[in-house]
Formats: sequence, C-alpha cells, structure tokens
Amino acid sequence: MDNFFSTRHSVRVFDNRPVSRKVIEEILKAAIHAPTTGNMQLYSVIVTDDVDGKSKLAAQHFNQPAAVNASAIITFCADYNRFEKWCLAREAKPGFNNFQSFVAAMLDATIVAQQFSVIAEMVGIGTCILGTTTYNANEIGELLSLPSRVVPVLSLAIGYMRDDEPDSPTERLPVDAVLHYGKYSDYNDNDIDRLYAEKENLPENVEFVKENGKKSLAQVFTDVRYPKSNNEIFSTKFIEYIIKQGYNL
Amino acid sequence: MDNFFSTRHSVRVFDNRPVSRKVIEEILKAAIHAPTTGNMQLYSVIVTDDVDGKSKLAAQHFNQPAAVNASAIITFCADYNRFEKWCLAREAKPGFNNFQSFVAAMLDATIVAQQFSVIAEMVGIGTCILGTTTYNANEIGELLSLPSRVVPVLSLAIGYMRDDEPDSPTERLPVDAVLHYGKYSDYNDNDIDRLYAEKENLPENVEFVKENGKKSLAQVFTDVRYPKSNNEIFSTKFIEYIIKQGYNL
Repeated sequence: MDNFFSTRHSVRVFDNRPVSRKVIEEILKAAIHAPTTGNMQLYSVIVTDDVDGKSKLAAQHFNQPAAVNASAIITFCADYNRFEKWCLAREAKPGFNNFQSFVAAMLDATIVAQQFSVIAEMVGIGTCILGTTTYNANEIGELLSLPSRVVPVLSLAIGYMRDDEPDSPTERLPVDAVLHYGKYSDYNDNDIDRLYAEKENLPENVEFVKENGKKSLAQVFTDVRYPKSNNEIFSTKFIEYIIKQGYNL
Repeated sequence: MDNFFSTRHSVRVFDNRPVSRKVIEEILKAAIHAPTTGNMQLYSVIVTDDVDGKSKLAAQHFNQPAAVNASAIITFCADYNRFEKWCLAREAKPGFNNFQSFVAAMLDATIVAQQFSVIAEMVGIGTCILGTTTYNANEIGELLSLPSRVVPVLSLAIGYMRDDEPDSPTERLPVDAVLHYGKYSDYNDNDIDRLYAEKENLPENVEFVKENGKKSLAQVFTDVRYPKSNNEIFSTKFIEYIIKQGYNL
C-alpha cells in the first residue's frame, strides 16, 4: 500500500480502451465520501467524453498531450449554485457570494478530485491533473455552460494505463524539505543547496536546462514555464471570472 | 477497496495512543508523491504535537472537539517561499507574487493533505479537516511563524481510531446530484426536492432542525452554521492576510 502511493505518478499517454461512464460513476460514488465542508458537497463534476467536446476542452488546456490523449476530461468545479438553490427553495437566505465561500467550495472540489484520482489509479486508470483549468476558467465555463456560483478549479485527464506503464515515480524533494515541527523553520542558502541538489543533478533535468538554453533549472521555471507576465495575465483573468460567477473579491 | 472509500468518515474522537513523528513522517514520505503543479511542491506541512502548541492552535479552530482531542494538528500551507528562495539562489527571477500562483500553491497543499489523509486512514489513523484554517489564517500563521508567501489553507486533526469506531459513512447526496455529462445541467425545484429528500428526512437532521429552532435544515446552514455576516468578516480577513503574505489580489 505504501508502495502504491510512493510509486504513483501522473499518466499522460493512455491505453486506447475507453473508460466507460459506468466505471466513472462507480469511482465517483466512492469518491464523494471524501471530506467536504459541513457536508455541503460544494462541487460539481463534469465529464466530457465525446470527441468534439474533448477537442474543444483540450484546446483550452493548450492541447497538452494528457488532454489530447484522454479517454475523458473531467472538470471539477467549485459549486455553491446547487446548495443555494436548495436554500432558496427552503426559505433560507444564502450568504455565499464571498471569497471565503469560494475558498470552501474550491477546497471541496480539489479534495473530491484527488479522491477520485486515487480510486481511479487503484483500478488501473491513469490520471493527469490539468493545472491550466484556472488559466482559462472562463472559456472552459462557457464550453460547459456553467451558471453563476460555479467555477472550474481543476481537471483530470483520465484513461486506462498501458501494460508497459513504468512503475517509477517522479522524483520529489527529501521529505524534510516540506516538513516542519512546531514552527516553520525558514531556509538558508545551505538548506536550499542541500534540498535541491538531487533534483538539479538528475540527468533529465540537466538535459532540460541545456535544451532550454538556460543557466539553471530554476531559470526554466521562471523564464519558460511560469514567467511573471503569464502569471499576471492569468491572475487578472481568473479574478475577473470568479467575480463574474458571483463571488465578491 | 471500494468499500474502504465508501465507508470512510471524519473522526473527531480518538484513541489516546499518540501518533509518533516517525509514523507521520512515513505517511508524508508516501503522500508527497501526490500530484503537484509542475513538480514544484508548493506546500509546507507543519506538525504540532506538543500540548501547549496544540491548545493554542485549537483555540484558533474555535476549540472544536477534533482539534482539542487530536494527537497532532497538521497545518498544510500554500508555500512559494522555498521555491522562490531556490530561484533567487540560482539567478532566476521569480514572478509568483500573484493570485494565480497562490491558487496553484493552494491546490498543491490541498492535494497533499488529502493524500496524507487517505494513507493515514489506511493505517488506522482517523482524520478530521479543520475548515476553520482559512478563517483565522493570520493568527495561525503567527503561531507557526510563517514567513512571506506562506499561507495556511487546511489543517488535519489526527489520532488513532478507537476500536469501536463505527464503520458507517456520513450520508451524501445521490451521485447524480453532482455528476454532469457534457454540459452542466442546472437544477429546477423538482430536482432540488428529489436530491435533498433523503438528507432532509434523516432522523438526526430532523432533530437538528428542531434543536436549532429552525423551519428547515437549510436554515440551520444559513442562519446558524454559515451566516452571511460571518462569511463576510472571514472573507475580508483572509484576503487581507493573503495580500500581507505577498500575493497581490
């Protein structure tokens, strides 16, 4: 079991058997027992498994391989719409048009997505999170006809794992890089050197730096993968969409 | 396995054996293989297991039973501090002082927390999410000495399950309440009646409405548990703290 979690990794190329709706529903039936704020289940799960729908969605995820190859793209949304409709139908005055409510719904959606992912992996279905969901939340919201108070926060590309899917995990920092006892103990230059040494010296990362013509792996992240200008554009876009969907910020 | 996930539930009263640091570390070692944005691991995990630290933290969680009874309280933080320190040490110019970066780190922290929770449950450790973390993030941040770019988003109260911990899950809405294919299909009054009927008719919920002197279960949520005025106060507080910690909003 330990080994199951320690060797898991995201899957971006899938076997071509489709994952049936019945299987998706069974996984979700188990996953909804994941924790949720006040048992309100502040999320909705939208499954896109038709060719046309997938290709339109994949475009909003910059046609990254996992999205293009997926048997289904599942979009997990922060959702106060259903709960609020219930309140209004029961003479209860909802007060959820605010940031704290959005955050609760975002936590709920993220948690159920991760639970879905774990259960899927246990039955041989690979998954890859599409972190681009919050970049193009408005375009995705339009494709999926999301009403007010519903905001996509995370998507999973899913498909059966290939028989020859390697059992090797992606490298991570040593556990003491992220673990603190009692208080946060901040990092000095020596800590940083020590904690990032293994990652920086991995042959594939050394190669990655060379390919990108950069001086360090960190520069690939700041200049190529997550440049400040992009982060700022997508921040403004996402904030505007959250407000449009009815959460004051 | 399916049964494992379908019968899980949050645990708020624990056996009194303490969960050792060794066990926590082993669980976290496996959990850090959960998905993370661009393999950046944008989170930190702070374990509070001393009596004084726990009691101070529990107070910020309104002394809810799970927090008071826990063997340890584990605070999961969105963290760009470590990654940024690495960038600065490698002549890379970070551009992470924005909302989209905060969101990525919040997703990372939430996902690793949920993975931690699943693995803990598999070895007989019960967990309860303390959703109050974002209410008092600033006070919690002060107790834990969090530097700039570190924001607590979710905490787990943990402890060994008692031998007589019931195997019964908390009720959830029928799966079709949260599942959509292709597009979001919005709910009409009949849908709401049908989807919430079972929940509203549960004897403990009927009793809960009566105890609170309300006309409907929904009113308990809007008037008692999550009133608009509280949501707004805690929204303002959290937004101010996110900005204070170095993420523009």
